Amino acid sequence: MIGMSSYAGVMESLMNSAEEQQPSSPLANSRSNKQESSESQKPNGVCGFVLVHAGAGYHSESKAKEYKHVCKRACQRVCSLYGCYLQTNNAVDQLKAGALAVEAVAAALVELEDSPFTNAGMGSNLNLSGEIECDASIMDGKSLHYGAVGAIRGIKNPVLVANRLLSEAQKGKLSAGRIPPCFLVGRGAHDWAVSHGIPPCPSEKMATKFSLSAYKRNKRKMELAEKMDSGHNQTKKRRQSSENENGSGCLDTVGAVVVDLEGNVAAAVSSGGLAMKHAGRVGQAAHYGCGCWAENARNMNPYSTAVSTSGCGEHLIRTMLARECSAAVQSEDAHQALLEAMQNKFISSPFLASEDRVLGGVIVLRCCRCVENQPSQNIQGILVEFLWSHTTESMCVGYMSAQDSKAKTHISRLPPGTVPGQSLAIEGGVCRLMSVVE
Amino acid sequence: MIGMSSYAGVMESLMNSAEEQQPSSPLANSRSNKQESSESQKPNGVCGFVLVHAGAGYHSESKAKEYKHVCKRACQRVCSLYGCYLQTNNAVDQLKAGALAVEAVAAALVELEDSPFTNAGMGSNLNLSGEIECDASIMDGKSLHYGAVGAIRGIKNPVLVANRLLSEAQKGKLSAGRIPPCFLVGRGAHDWAVSHGIPPCPSEKMATKFSLSAYKRNKRKMELAEKMDSGHNQTKKRRQSSENENGSGCLDTVGAVVVDLEGNVAAAVSSGGLAMKHAGRVGQAAHYGCGCWAENARNMNPYSTAVSTSGCGEHLIRTMLARECSAAVQSEDAHQALLEAMQNKFISSPFLASEDRVLGGVIVLRCCRCVENQPSQNIQGILVEFLWSHTTESMCVGYMSAQDSKAKTHISRLPPGTVPGQSLAIEGGVCRLMSVVE
Repeated sequence: MIGMSSYAGVMESLMNSAEEQQPSSPLANSRSNKQESSESQKPNGVCGFVLVHAGAGYHSESKAKEYKHVCKRACQRVCSLYGCYLQTNNAVDQLKAGALAVEAVAAALVELEDSPFTNAGMGSNLNLSGEIECDASIMDGKSLHYGAVGAIRGIKNPVLVANRLLSEAQKGKLSAGRIPPCFLVGRGAHDWAVSHGIPPCPSEKMATKFSLSAYKRNKRKMELAEKMDSGHNQTKKRRQSSENENGSGCLDTVGAVVVDLEGNVAAAVSSGGLAMKHAGRVGQAAHYGCGCWAENARNMNPYSTAVSTSGCGEHLIRTMLARECSAAVQSEDAHQALLEAMQNKFISSPFLASEDRVLGGVIVLRCCRCVENQPSQNIQGILVEFLWSHTTESMCVGYMSAQDSKAKTHISRLPPGTVPGQSLAIEGGVCRLMSVVE
Repeated sequence: MIGMSSYAGVMESLMNSAEEQQPSSPLANSRSNKQESSESQKPNGVCGFVLVHAGAGYHSESKAKEYKHVCKRACQRVCSLYGCYLQTNNAVDQLKAGALAVEAVAAALVELEDSPFTNAGMGSNLNLSGEIECDASIMDGKSLHYGAVGAIRGIKNPVLVANRLLSEAQKGKLSAGRIPPCFLVGRGAHDWAVSHGIPPCPSEKMATKFSLSAYKRNKRKMELAEKMDSGHNQTKKRRQSSENENGSGCLDTVGAVVVDLEGNVAAAVSSGGLAMKHAGRVGQAAHYGCGCWAENARNMNPYSTAVSTSGCGEHLIRTMLARECSAAVQSEDAHQALLEAMQNKFISSPFLASEDRVLGGVIVLRCCRCVENQPSQNIQGILVEFLWSHTTESMCVGYMSAQDSKAKTHISRLPPGTVPGQSLAIEGGVCRLMSVVE
């Protein structure tokens, strides 16, 4: 069973003069919009768009407010960054370097990592040894460069290390013709970060009351489970199922996808990993093609796409979900394409044939340029479609265009009565970002 | 300019009664063979096939003998393993578990890692800090499970840790419903290995006279280059080019692809990484889809495929070369498909647009079942096509079927006058493994 509803909040706020819009079917709308050039538009300065998530997993009603709040802050941080670029004198120079989308997505991630409620950066899950080890990666849709860190300790914002790896790699070879790394892990990643000016953060400062008490609770559960398991395999299987059902909040990786004023896309993801993971375990958030993906339109690809994933890292790695979803939404109907990708390439993937439940979620942004010739002025713009889909009980998302005054947030939930890991929810919206070309 | 020649040695040795064979075009032959069921065959017991590489890079004539020798040993180890399975009583049980292909490919890798001449396991390149950190991964084409370790220290055979991760993951969930890891790095990977019975090996025992002297030489070069660079960017660029040309033997990752008696495929790869890499750097050998790939035939895929890559890790990661090549050779003409994949998805990949030289190599095995109805007996078998292609100056490969008494080895070189990183060599052969079904 597929749950589906549609969000067109952003489109409404941007297109409040377009009376003919049908918010019940925003994605179908998007295609007709591209063809209709006579629609009335109120251009309001160039801007960008951001879509973030605070994890696919289980978001209790009691914590919903916090999750929404951090998503809102992340969106607003990106949009104020877009605003600053437009106002400062050196904006054009910086834009030419193509760095804005990457900088924006990193800024969103910093906000998400800094929240003690998310499982990324501050407040990350503790591993088996009681340590915090984080994964993060970032991808630039323009240069297609990529940076990632895995199992890094003692760095408050792992995404900043991934971002620095990306920008260092873009500078070309190191001394003696050595190729710069795109992926660093563990102690080496930490030392590289510090030597590149990223301050270390004592591990004890990254743990929160919440993460420490969750660790103690999980440890007790595990010890109890292991005791009970000895000679009771039947019990073991039942217990495992009930563990999965409560979700224990251990899947809430964070991520963001953006498109900047020039139509460049970028994506990023950051995670503290599964609770009680083995030290050194690296999940999808550090894995190329699995945690995030961004690719500007070119040649065979009519759309620019950006994707960020969340959920069970091993499932997302083995299905390369970020890249699969990016490739899928090159077909005309993004909503249908994502639905099929989540069904065929994730829930029913032959790579996960032995898994009883396939847990994950994605946020997807795709966009293309559109031009409207009005009698008095030339209007250029970007048509943005944004979607999210998950097989987990819930997923928290936020989105905003730089023309909005506030971000919208939403906790998407599986339809009542459906089984997490075996059915999915999919929602999304459309946003048109227009500007007058002098 | 594309260099091309064809190898049909294995086919010759297996099909010495087939007078009509045309060794000058083995891959074209393979397709016609599939259709011709009346060809005379001398079935000789079921067997498997192995193709190994000792790296795409630069293999000096002086060391050629050593590289060939270790490739030969790796092939023979696999084939004696196949032989053992046929002779022992429990062979059928073990085969039913589908473990033979994985076990065989791991055995080949152990042999390749144990050679002090290859850049994997013993004798690996030292990193900037003078330490050995290894990457390895393995993939099972039947279950599609995968295991990998990155930047692991103090383990003589990293592939055995990757293999153990794969087999542990196949057993299902850990206590309290935790999902077993498929990818471990650094200290955590080392500790996991030791706790799973894989003995640690003191780092000083893994370094060789050769690797230590290469480290000292590289360090002096780097220091000199950095001194010269200060204020002399022009000089820097020239120097970088000449560094690339000599290759300095730092790309010789090892790998293997196999098909077992039941037609299951597996692939593995292992690497000490680039010389003078930063501590914690992880290359393609630990990266899903980049270092190796194995996928049994199913549904839309008529062929089972197995791929292992070698070369500049960052280039192989960003192009996901192993998976791309595996997907490419599902089309009818494997040779043409691989040629196009290496051109379009590697040398001319938009993901590497800013790179002046794209350095790497692959070995590819693909196979499909074939049945021949003879008047007196039913002959079943596997048609194996094997190929290698590289953009580096040279690549050392070895191959063998379990019916052969000796492995064949070959140092493939770019055609004279062509530029490494911008042109490629591609070669391969065909082998038919037949058996009588009672």
